[in-house]
Amino acid sequence: MTATTIPAVIDTEEVRRAAALLRPDADPIEVAARAAWSVLVEPGDGVAGALIAACGPAEALRLAFSDTALLPVQGDPRAMAEARRRWLPRARPAAIVDALHGCRDVGGRMLLPGDPEWPSALDDLGAHAPVVLWTRGDPAVLADAVAVAIVGARAATAYGESVAAELAGDLAASGAVVVSGGAYGIDGAAHRAALGAGGTTVAFLAGGVDRAYPIGHQQLFDRIRTGGAVISEVPCGGAPTKWRFLQRNRLIAAAGHATVVVEAGWRSGSLNTAGHAASLGRPLGAVPGPVTSAASAGCHRLLREYDAVCVTNAAEVRELWGEVPDDAASVVPPDPDRGRLLDALSDRVAVDAAELARRSGLSLDRVRALLGTLSLDGTVEQTELGWRRGS
Amino acid sequence: MTATTIPAVIDTEEVRRAAALLRPDADPIEVAARAAWSVLVEPGDGVAGALIAACGPAEALRLAFSDTALLPVQGDPRAMAEARRRWLPRARPAAIVDALHGCRDVGGRMLLPGDPEWPSALDDLGAHAPVVLWTRGDPAVLADAVAVAIVGARAATAYGESVAAELAGDLAASGAVVVSGGAYGIDGAAHRAALGAGGTTVAFLAGGVDRAYPIGHQQLFDRIRTGGAVISEVPCGGAPTKWRFLQRNRLIAAAGHATVVVEAGWRSGSLNTAGHAASLGRPLGAVPGPVTSAASAGCHRLLREYDAVCVTNAAEVRELWGEVPDDAASVVPPDPDRGRLLDALSDRVAVDAAELARRSGLSLDRVRALLGTLSLDGTVEQTELGWRRGS
Repeated sequence: MTATTIPAVIDTEEVRRAAALLRPDADPIEVAARAAWSVLVEPGDGVAGALIAACGPAEALRLAFSDTALLPVQGDPRAMAEARRRWLPRARPAAIVDALHGCRDVGGRMLLPGDPEWPSALDDLGAHAPVVLWTRGDPAVLADAVAVAIVGARAATAYGESVAAELAGDLAASGAVVVSGGAYGIDGAAHRAALGAGGTTVAFLAGGVDRAYPIGHQQLFDRIRTGGAVISEVPCGGAPTKWRFLQRNRLIAAAGHATVVVEAGWRSGSLNTAGHAASLGRPLGAVPGPVTSAASAGCHRLLREYDAVCVTNAAEVRELWGEVPDDAASVVPPDPDRGRLLDALSDRVAVDAAELARRSGLSLDRVRALLGTLSLDGTVEQTELGWRRGS
Repeated sequence: MTATTIPAVIDTEEVRRAAALLRPDADPIEVAARAAWSVLVEPGDGVAGALIAACGPAEALRLAFSDTALLPVQGDPRAMAEARRRWLPRARPAAIVDALHGCRDVGGRMLLPGDPEWPSALDDLGAHAPVVLWTRGDPAVLADAVAVAIVGARAATAYGESVAAELAGDLAASGAVVVSGGAYGIDGAAHRAALGAGGTTVAFLAGGVDRAYPIGHQQLFDRIRTGGAVISEVPCGGAPTKWRFLQRNRLIAAAGHATVVVEAGWRSGSLNTAGHAASLGRPLGAVPGPVTSAASAGCHRLLREYDAVCVTNAAEVRELWGEVPDDAASVVPPDPDRGRLLDALSDRVAVDAAELARRSGLSLDRVRALLGTLSLDGTVEQTELGWRRGS
C-alpha cells in the first residue's frame, strides 16, 4: 500500500485518526481504504470487488476517482464508468470517519480479509466477497467450527419455529455454529435454540451492527454477542434495505457449510439465500411441511426446482456436510421366502410341511429348510400335527 | 400352441369346458395353460415368466412337469429344479377348474397378454409380468388413458386422506385413470375421490377379485367396477398374503405412468410400490408432510433416498409424465436496480434525484432513467420538491 499515493477521499487527518483508533494493529491506509469502500458501495458490488482484487483497496480507491483513462473491469469498460458514477455521490470523508467511529462507539471490531478471525469461507464469493466486516462479539467463532445456516420465513408457523428450534438446538449442542439472519420467525427460533443449548450462534445483519433490526430483537442480539457475533458488511448507521437483505443472504449462505431452509413462502427471501448456497456449491437442505401450508411452499419449491435435500432432523442436516450417522451399519435384508412361509403358518392350527409348501408356493425342501432355521429361535413350533407359529 | 402335446395337468374334459365357457373367443389351450400357471405360481415368479416367454404357456407347462433334462432358465439350471419343486404341490386340475369357474361365477373376465384390453404397460415387467389377469368391470380403461398410481399408508392421517382426495379428484376429472390398491387410508381416499369426480379408477387386489379385501370396502369395489375395474393376477378364491401384497404393488407401479405416494410410514408397503416404480423407470412422486408426522416419514425417505420428486398438487403430478402447466410462460425477472430505487423513495417526502442516487447506491444517470420509466405507470410521481412514490 505504501507505494500508492494516498487517495484524496481518505487523505485527511480525521480519517487517519479514526482508522488508527479502531485498528491500531493494522495498516491505517488499508483500514481507511476498506472503510471508504464499505461506505461507497452497496454490498456485493462486483466492479468494486474486481478492482480491489486487482489493485488492492487503496490503489483501487485512487483509480476510482482519478481522471486517468478508464480501467476496464470484467471485460466491460463501460462498467467502470457506470460504477464510478454510482460511487461518486457517496465519496465524502465525513461518512468514512462516521463509519470508523460508529464501530468504535459500540465496541465493535472491523475485520479485514486476512485477519485470523476473518471467516475464510466468505472468500468463496470471489469479486462479491465483502470488502470489510463490521462485527460485535467474537467473530473468531466462524474461523474454526463447522457452521450451518438455518434460515426461513419471518411469517413462520408454530410448526416451523418448533422444527427450527429442534434442529438448531441439536446442531449447536454438538458444536456447530448456527448462522442466521436475526429476523423474526425461523431465524429468531434458530438463534434462540442455539443459545438455549449453550451453543454458539452468529447473526448477519442487513444494516449496521449498531442498530437492532428488528428492534424487538435488541435483547436477542445482545445475547448472541456474548458467545457469538453479530456481523454486517454495511457500516454502522447503515439502514437495512431490501437490496441489503438480499446481499446479506449471500454472506449467510457462504458462511455456512450447509444451508437449511425450514419454512419459506413461495417468494420468500430465504429462497434467495438458498439460491446463493446452491450457486456456491454449498449443500442445501429444505425441511418439508404440509402441502396445505403456504409457509412450506418455498421449501417444497426448493426440493422441486433447486434439487435441495429433504431434511427432517439434525442427523440428516449433518449428513449434508458428510457426517455419517452412527446407526448407518449395514442392515441384512430379510429373506422374502421367510415372510411367505410365516404368512402360510397359523398361530393356532398346526399345518404340515406339504400344506405349507402349497400355501406359500415354496418347494417342500425350501419349506423344511426354513422351518429348521425358524425353529431355532422359537419363531415356529413343531407339534404332533405339524407346524405353527411360536408363542 | 397346437404343435405342443397338451400338458397333462390341463388335459381333462373339465378344464377344457371351463376354459371354453370363460373365454369362448380364445385358444382354449392357452386359456387353460395360463389359468394353470396362475394357480401354480406365486405372483412375480421369474422362472415361470422366463419359461413362458421362451416356450409359450402350454409348452412351458409341459416342460415344467416332464421328466426330460432340466431346462436351464436365466443361466441357472438349479433354478428350474427348485421352481419345479415349488410348483408341483399345486398341480391339480381341480384347482384350475375352480379358478376358471370362479371368475365366470362373478361375471369376471380373464385377460390374456395380447388381448386388446390388456394393459400393455405391464409388459415392462418382463419375466415378472403377470401370466394372466382376472378382472371385474371394464379393464379396457387402462388400455388407452393416462394412468396414475396414487398409493399410501392404511394408517393415514386426515391430512393425507385429504391430499390424496384432492390429487385423485383433480387428476380423474382431467381424464387420468387413478390406479390404487383398494386398501383403507390413502388408497380408499384416492379411489373415492376419483369416483366422486366422475372419473375412472382401477383397484389392483392382492387376493382374488371374487372377495373384497378389506371387507369394509365391498361397496367401494362395487362402485369401482361400474366405470373402472378391479384386477388381480391371483385367481378367484386366492387369499391376500403379505407376499401377494408386495407383488401386487409391482402391478400398480407398472400400470401407472407415474406413481405418487401420499403418506407412508418409515417401513410402509407403499415404499415397495415406489421401489417398483423406480426400478421400472416410472416417474415417482412423494407428497411431503410435517416432519413430526410418522405417516409422512416414508415420503420423506423417498425424497431423500429414492430421488422421488416432491409433488404438492395435481399440476405437479401431471408434470411427472411431462405435461407442461399452462402458466409456465416465461417470466421476466425484475430489474434489481428498480427495487433499490423504490426502497430509496418515500411515499410522503419528496426526494431529489441526487439524494436518491446516494441512498440507492445507483448512479445519477441510472436513477434518472429509472425514474422516467417508473413515472410512466404512476409508480413514482414528480413534485416541485423532487420524487416520491405514486399514490
